[in-house]
Amino acid sequence: MALTFNLVNSTPAGGRRARLFLPHQTVETPVFMPVGTQGTVKAVPQDALESLGAEIILGNTYHLYLRPGHEPIRRMGGLHRFISWPRALLTDSGGFQVFSLSQLRKVTEDGVQFRSHLDGSLHSFTPEHSIHVQIALGADICMSFDECTEYPASRSRAEESLRLTMAWAHRSLAHFRAHRQDVPWFDPKVCRTQCCFGIVQGGMYADLRRQCAERLIELDFDGYAIGGLSVGEPRELTLEMISEVLPLLPKDKPRYVMGVGYPDEIEQYARLGVDMMDCVLPTRAARHALLFTSEGRLNIKNKQFAEDQNPPDPACTCPVCRRYSRAYLRHLVQAGEPLAATLNSIHNLAFYLGIMQRVRASLASAPTPISIDP
Amino acid sequence: MALTFNLVNSTPAGGRRARLFLPHQTVETPVFMPVGTQGTVKAVPQDALESLGAEIILGNTYHLYLRPGHEPIRRMGGLHRFISWPRALLTDSGGFQVFSLSQLRKVTEDGVQFRSHLDGSLHSFTPEHSIHVQIALGADICMSFDECTEYPASRSRAEESLRLTMAWAHRSLAHFRAHRQDVPWFDPKVCRTQCCFGIVQGGMYADLRRQCAERLIELDFDGYAIGGLSVGEPRELTLEMISEVLPLLPKDKPRYVMGVGYPDEIEQYARLGVDMMDCVLPTRAARHALLFTSEGRLNIKNKQFAEDQNPPDPACTCPVCRRYSRAYLRHLVQAGEPLAATLNSIHNLAFYLGIMQRVRASLASAPTPISIDP
Repeated sequence: MALTFNLVNSTPAGGRRARLFLPHQTVETPVFMPVGTQGTVKAVPQDALESLGAEIILGNTYHLYLRPGHEPIRRMGGLHRFISWPRALLTDSGGFQVFSLSQLRKVTEDGVQFRSHLDGSLHSFTPEHSIHVQIALGADICMSFDECTEYPASRSRAEESLRLTMAWAHRSLAHFRAHRQDVPWFDPKVCRTQCCFGIVQGGMYADLRRQCAERLIELDFDGYAIGGLSVGEPRELTLEMISEVLPLLPKDKPRYVMGVGYPDEIEQYARLGVDMMDCVLPTRAARHALLFTSEGRLNIKNKQFAEDQNPPDPACTCPVCRRYSRAYLRHLVQAGEPLAATLNSIHNLAFYLGIMQRVRASLASAPTPISIDP
Repeated sequence: MALTFNLVNSTPAGGRRARLFLPHQTVETPVFMPVGTQGTVKAVPQDALESLGAEIILGNTYHLYLRPGHEPIRRMGGLHRFISWPRALLTDSGGFQVFSLSQLRKVTEDGVQFRSHLDGSLHSFTPEHSIHVQIALGADICMSFDECTEYPASRSRAEESLRLTMAWAHRSLAHFRAHRQDVPWFDPKVCRTQCCFGIVQGGMYADLRRQCAERLIELDFDGYAIGGLSVGEPRELTLEMISEVLPLLPKDKPRYVMGVGYPDEIEQYARLGVDMMDCVLPTRAARHALLFTSEGRLNIKNKQFAEDQNPPDPACTCPVCRRYSRAYLRHLVQAGEPLAATLNSIHNLAFYLGIMQRVRASLASAPTPISIDP
């Protein structure tokens, strides 16, 4: 079953209002996907995510592979069932976490050897193994195993990384096509299964990015991601790489920029035609008392909020802003109370999801380029 | 306004099904009160407490006095408004936390000098000051300032503690009666304000306990608590002290045993005529991965639950048991995820509140002792 992706409207700037039909959820795009690293969006219960309107969340393959393990999750019916999340899920390939978290990483043609950040045990990920693990987890969307280029990287380093990523894309897709029916919730009657996205790498070299995109498209993935961004480069460079790649990608497939970004970034990229984004920023910032609001960023720990009875964001209608004051959130942070992380995270996610909701409304109503019938 | 406490039914064993009319909530008793030490029941959002049916929760005067301070809370309209909890609240006197948490405690006739466990700063609580702080916090029920006897304690130590507690009870009540109209939400039209409970001390000496109860009753508090229990004594002694005191207390006023207990204890005491209880156990145990269930206690961290897809308690209908498996809760604990504390706490509180709900139903339907009309 190929992925169904229906364009509702598009704008001259390239922005697209669309609908992504996944086995567990129809996702309205552009969409922001909260990150549920270890099978939980940190400090936020699943019902709160549902109330906020989250339609798809991420799980991290590296983390879930190490703990509790993909085989237990497969035996329990897959990640949806294990974490009790009936809507859509996406798993990354593990490549980025191996790159950023593991110790003694050793990259070969075959794959990556690494030591677990938890206990130092030795593991290896190949493209086949990453896909094998992702099929066991059974997200709606899995990702091709890629090699993430660090920033800054020399051209030869970026070329080598691109070469590996392409070789691994072929192997990922071959393994995926041979085994996609092994997903725990596979339904043979309707051929209901996962889909697989390719990842464009190429460092900060526009021609390498274009080359990678063109070659991946030949492989005919279900969707295309742009990876290896938000790794420390200046924001103009992020934008440049996205702008180089987007026009090359097929219009009838979803486009996903991984690991971005700040509130204004996700809005900007969505208006340029990015359909999917994910980032730990809203939840990580929340755990450090940083709130995103319509009035800018608030460090809710600041003394100025000690007796501020306004809601965190007066323009926000999330459950936190409807019920609690800045003074209370500040108190929870000051007192080291776990509720601080929960309430701050719920607000920040509401803020991110609210941005995308407004962008979707604006893209849906934007006039389409006039076409003159002959 | 005197406290209204309506008996619905009582049993030969002394158990009472009653209704406590407080300014912010009518509380069905016997009731278990979750503890919200620093203005939050640890890791549990207020709306989850409401869904569980919690009608009254505790705040700790010692903690809230130190942080954020009672004056800021008064200025913000009192604790109900500060923490956004519209139902009933009870504050303790601070006596127990000064006794158990603070450093360099020095007890004099006047009150207690102590150093904050947060920053070592010097503070003093007198009966007048404790009530002053509690009026500023503005819970529905405040508690007389008492001196908690450690366990074990010699008879002379217990006598001295009883003497102080009685002297302080007089002073607490005098201050309360003179200033009860200063509560932040005072309504002069209906004389809507707080009520104040006395605390029976006397260590583990039954005659001292009885003496304390009798003398407190003369002061005509709105309700009576039995304090200084669950301080390390064997459980038979706890029961003995409760059983000695209960028959002496006025039938038309609520009776509160402070700081108890295990699930079977709260049921036992409720059936003997205790109307109110509080304990950190359900939430503290939850944060240490201990679940109370109809099948006994589960250490959800245990490996045996790694692939157990049953709900934490198959007989429980709480939101956690309806949605999540033991395997998932175990994973959250193993992975150090904050959601573990939230979900475990919600379940344990549901278990405690469920016990009281069943006890109330059973007390309501118990045949009353037959009275033969002349």
